[in-house]
Amino acid sequence: MYGLIGKMIAKPGQRDALVAILLEGTGEMPGCLSYIIATDPTDANAIWITEVWDTQDQHDRSLQLPAVQAAIARARPLIEGFGERFVTEPVGGVGLS
Amino acid sequence: MYGLIGKMIAKPGQRDALVAILLEGTGEMPGCLSYIIATDPTDANAIWITEVWDTQDQHDRSLQLPAVQAAIARARPLIEGFGERFVTEPVGGVGLS
Repeated sequence: MYGLIGKMIAKPGQRDALVAILLEGTGEMPGCLSYIIATDPTDANAIWITEVWDTQDQHDRSLQLPAVQAAIARARPLIEGFGERFVTEPVGGVGLS
Repeated sequence: MYGLIGKMIAKPGQRDALVAILLEGTGEMPGCLSYIIATDPTDANAIWITEVWDTQDQHDRSLQLPAVQAAIARARPLIEGFGERFVTEPVGGVGLS
């Protein structure tokens, strides 16, 4: 499995709108086992995204899906930047659908 | 929802044993929506644990479950320390069982 833990920073006041777009974009993604969007209680602009995919290739290809491309296009103007990013190799647990 | 992203450092050579204990300990935890164990491809001793709970209270109470207490007792001698730790407020996504 292939995992990502990443922090996204919204432009001031845009976090809720950005979260909504991210949630809409996670519908049908082949190979996606977990994709959880969270806000950061210590930073009003920060979003944490934790992902698990069967393979890195499936993650990479998901970025070309029309629904994901559309979400990226709508999200981009609301993104200030990115914070921490960690690649992981998930091995198991609860919630890998 | 209540979320945690945390890095655990195993004693040298003990990561696989520690991961196995962590995986066994995640069976029946009321309020646990996601609990994913991952290794870090850049650090042979590091483990990432990402968790989502209905409430922080359910997370806190899980630490008193007999199975979790037993896992903690077996895991403790294999743990060198802890790295990054982020509390999050999950709002949705894929894989929240």
